[in-house]
Amino acid sequence: MAQKPSIPKGTRDFGQIEMARRNYIFDTIRSVFALYGFQQIETPAMENIGTLMGKYGEEGDKLLFRIQNSGEKASSAPEKGLRYDLTVPFARYVVQHREEISFPFKRFQIQPVWRADRPQKGRYREFYQCDVDVIGSDSLIGELELIQIVEEVYRRFGIRVCLHINNRKILAGIAEVIGAPDKIIDITVAIDKLDKIGVDAVNAELKERGLSDEQVEALQPILTTPPQPSPQVRENASKAKLASLREYLATSEIGLKGVAEMEEIFGLVESTKTASLKEESRFSIELDLCLARGLNYYTGAIFEVKALDAQIGSITGGGRYDNLTGIFGLPNVSGVGISFGADRIYDVLTELVLFPKELQSTTKILFAAFGQEELKYALRWAKELRAKGISVEVYPEPAKMKKQMGYADDKKIPFVAIVGGNEMETNTVMLKEMNSGEQKQVTLDELCTIL
Amino acid sequence: MAQKPSIPKGTRDFGQIEMARRNYIFDTIRSVFALYGFQQIETPAMENIGTLMGKYGEEGDKLLFRIQNSGEKASSAPEKGLRYDLTVPFARYVVQHREEISFPFKRFQIQPVWRADRPQKGRYREFYQCDVDVIGSDSLIGELELIQIVEEVYRRFGIRVCLHINNRKILAGIAEVIGAPDKIIDITVAIDKLDKIGVDAVNAELKERGLSDEQVEALQPILTTPPQPSPQVRENASKAKLASLREYLATSEIGLKGVAEMEEIFGLVESTKTASLKEESRFSIELDLCLARGLNYYTGAIFEVKALDAQIGSITGGGRYDNLTGIFGLPNVSGVGISFGADRIYDVLTELVLFPKELQSTTKILFAAFGQEELKYALRWAKELRAKGISVEVYPEPAKMKKQMGYADDKKIPFVAIVGGNEMETNTVMLKEMNSGEQKQVTLDELCTIL
Repeated sequence: MAQKPSIPKGTRDFGQIEMARRNYIFDTIRSVFALYGFQQIETPAMENIGTLMGKYGEEGDKLLFRIQNSGEKASSAPEKGLRYDLTVPFARYVVQHREEISFPFKRFQIQPVWRADRPQKGRYREFYQCDVDVIGSDSLIGELELIQIVEEVYRRFGIRVCLHINNRKILAGIAEVIGAPDKIIDITVAIDKLDKIGVDAVNAELKERGLSDEQVEALQPILTTPPQPSPQVRENASKAKLASLREYLATSEIGLKGVAEMEEIFGLVESTKTASLKEESRFSIELDLCLARGLNYYTGAIFEVKALDAQIGSITGGGRYDNLTGIFGLPNVSGVGISFGADRIYDVLTELVLFPKELQSTTKILFAAFGQEELKYALRWAKELRAKGISVEVYPEPAKMKKQMGYADDKKIPFVAIVGGNEMETNTVMLKEMNSGEQKQVTLDELCTIL
Repeated sequence: MAQKPSIPKGTRDFGQIEMARRNYIFDTIRSVFALYGFQQIETPAMENIGTLMGKYGEEGDKLLFRIQNSGEKASSAPEKGLRYDLTVPFARYVVQHREEISFPFKRFQIQPVWRADRPQKGRYREFYQCDVDVIGSDSLIGELELIQIVEEVYRRFGIRVCLHINNRKILAGIAEVIGAPDKIIDITVAIDKLDKIGVDAVNAELKERGLSDEQVEALQPILTTPPQPSPQVRENASKAKLASLREYLATSEIGLKGVAEMEEIFGLVESTKTASLKEESRFSIELDLCLARGLNYYTGAIFEVKALDAQIGSITGGGRYDNLTGIFGLPNVSGVGISFGADRIYDVLTELVLFPKELQSTTKILFAAFGQEELKYALRWAKELRAKGISVEVYPEPAKMKKQMGYADDKKIPFVAIVGGNEMETNTVMLKEMNSGEQKQVTLDELCTIL
């Protein structure tokens, strides 16, 4: 009869502490989104299989979870699949509801997605995505606001980050000027590895991928941009890089358009900086020509955010797309979006010990009673405190005091109010501060003041 | 290429307004749970099929959604299914993590569940459940706290409710005293229909189900409890009912135990009432012997909450169980829990026009600019306001003023700040209050004060 309980591989249970921390991450991000007028939507966990198939490449199709009704005949219902990301359902949503939406449409979405990936450290079959997009405008103020959101979110978390930014038009321009416009994907796949394998290996790979010696030679100015340590230097270096790109890309219309976009974005960031924020060095932004994520998808700016004090890769990323909704029959709608990686942010906050201490317990005080009458007395006090918004637990039995104290310890409840006959007579409780072990007798008013 | 986008039947997209309202419901409930020290957990959307099968009866098994990996061979992985409710995963969680949990374990869980039911009005294939339970204690303070939570949640919503309460031990006692202890399920299924079909039809059904004329006759005192209108009358009637049950069940040990439990619960509710709450008539509690939901599951108190001003059935329900975790090999763990029906609460709040008005828009003010320079000016003001926690949007293009105003209208943004050359010169904006149409020129400080 009894089964040894377990959960499917690659999935997770989240206990109270993990949930408090995850809610802290999502609430923080959500509250910053709200400052900019982004509004939440949700889509169903299951989409029609036709909505999903063919959107994530051949590999992606294999990683879709399909859903069967137990009771229905296989043929009686269209097949369904679990949401693989939030982008395709968002595109489907925009097209399906386009008559009700006021554009530019600023939406965010925080929901789990499912992928039948081989589970491994840090990779799960169920994980949350947290996407924010503005769609229906090609104004670069979209890019600016996402940059400001990134800055503010990580300021609130206390994580020092560098926002790497690139532009697909610049990459296209580079491919054009070295005379290999059809090789843009090969070039960007290779230079994307620059950090990991170094310039020599990248050059070798470029030749393998069919670039001539001259083309590889012509690409070298792009590949030799040393990493810049300080934020100030980073930004100046980015401006200098853009100036030199303007010369390098002089013959490429699309390349120059990319440079102009980047100059405008840097200009907007600069012009909206306030004095106080300038002083902070927790956030920096850097033009990074090696950044090439999701290229076939993005058409303008590309973003990636890295934590400076943790070795964990990208914790936020995204970019500008011009044709997301085209697959569902609504072409030429431009948008820009980013996605926050909740699991990685969780790991960074843990590694850098940045989670607020209050998350350990929501309960402020536990009432521990010596007998049944004391319990009723405690319940009345508890009700008064809760009416003032204070989170209270009453240990539900007059158990041994050691057991009741152990419960408070386990749940990291900071205060215990002990109730015995003496306290009832004097209309007080014996308040114990769990950290220091200090005890004192207090009235209800005094207790409210302390809590 | 283009597909007409749609979603699987029985599922829903939630737009911004719906999400704001749903979040209001969940946040309200969550904040009340927190006052009592309940902490959130989450379990995976998919469970091993063995965890789910056989837990919901034959019908339930048919309504499970099964999950297949697209890329994996059918035999290579254990089969999985989508979560059907939050109760079975909770039982699985408690057994699996019993070494880490401090009992009594007070948890809540707000997650979607999936059932392959035939979709119809108000019944969906994906819907949220919102469960709160305390497990690992048989203290009736558990019941008390859930009653207090119900009272506080609906007080915050502004919904007048009656909490119907019964006890499975009383039902068992009734079956015993009429000499049909093996017919407890038949009896309760029949009297559960009293409201709908009336006493004569119930009596007929009882006879059909094998009760003798004498047994049905002996049951009549139970079936003739008139509904009581006012809260005060309701409570007194409940006490009177318990007193007469004490006589009726004099020969049944289990029945008397049920009466004693109910008396203790009513006593606890009474003794923790504060003067101010006594005056409120928004909440009442009533012993309802016709209440018999989920009988084979509950072992003590049974709850059901009905809105007094809407015809919608139960909006919250639950009860005491003594062996929830037994199916997973951990017997004799007593708990008590209730589940809030979010979809029905949504419908009641809509019907009674009780959603707070602020939910219509998170954005406080839209900046509408006449040109590019004005836009940059607006972006600087926006940043200052956001730093003060005010939610601001900047229309991302200097579009026609009519279009920008239309956007504010659509999103129900209460204020628009218009920026032209004159405003830039005088370091002001033209503030328009959208409801009244009033306009006035204000400085940044004045604007902050107004917002």
